[in-house]
Amino acid sequence: MVILGLDPGIARTGFGLIDTSTRSLYVRCGCITTPQHLPVEDRLLMLALDLTAIISEHKPDQAVVEQIFFGNNAKTAIVTAQARGVILVTLRQHHIPITSLTPLQIKSRLTGYGAASKEQVQTIVTKQLKLSATPQPDDAADALAAALSLTSAY
Amino acid sequence: MVILGLDPGIARTGFGLIDTSTRSLYVRCGCITTPQHLPVEDRLLMLALDLTAIISEHKPDQAVVEQIFFGNNAKTAIVTAQARGVILVTLRQHHIPITSLTPLQIKSRLTGYGAASKEQVQTIVTKQLKLSATPQPDDAADALAAALSLTSAY
Repeated sequence: MVILGLDPGIARTGFGLIDTSTRSLYVRCGCITTPQHLPVEDRLLMLALDLTAIISEHKPDQAVVEQIFFGNNAKTAIVTAQARGVILVTLRQHHIPITSLTPLQIKSRLTGYGAASKEQVQTIVTKQLKLSATPQPDDAADALAAALSLTSAY
Repeated sequence: MVILGLDPGIARTGFGLIDTSTRSLYVRCGCITTPQHLPVEDRLLMLALDLTAIISEHKPDQAVVEQIFFGNNAKTAIVTAQARGVILVTLRQHHIPITSLTPLQIKSRLTGYGAASKEQVQTIVTKQLKLSATPQPDDAADALAAALSLTSAY
């Protein structure tokens, strides 16, 4: 089973792919980025197109999409939520089942501990995927953690 | 020029269409609704499809999309923002130029007064469009107000 993890954002959406039918699990990770000077609708379209390209190439069976963490900044949360809406509808258009998990749920599933630090999560991701170094940037590592958390639930 | 006003929401997205090349201006208004029991990604897809049908039928030259009003409920704002993201990307896919306005900006443009009541705005919409009664429901009236506010800026 190919699982696509996604950490939504308008400037950067982290993505991470794992394949549970292989020993090594790890397939690919990275970020979909959109330039800040463009209107938001152009950036959302770029996100939809880049995500579609990833879906077409790797044909994920399942997706895990991080819930929006609502911090202090309402404006950022709203912009991120707009990107998340585009991600959800793009996955749905490609008939990919979606699991929505909060950052806390992802941490809990991976480490057994919801208050685990980012470093603890990254260490587990790096070990489970037998990578030689922590995946970069953080958003890509978070997306791999999201994908891995689905396997931890089995 | 056909202008499509939109008041985004996941349960109800108000839409209002006016045609500035006609004396009566008014074309149509209503709501795109999605059932609450469905997963959010299914509801977002329904929204995208229904909006696409409206675009295909009326071929708007311009769209005005209300900004999210960030009230007390962060969760509602985030869900509404996800719907707004889908609306923006759908309009962009159909090459429709988008103007984003806050409720306050729309009120100001229509009434000259940002703190105008909902009733005052509805009265102006009803008069300007020569309607026999206030458009219903409120979301449809708000969407017509959004569309009209673009003409008030000329």
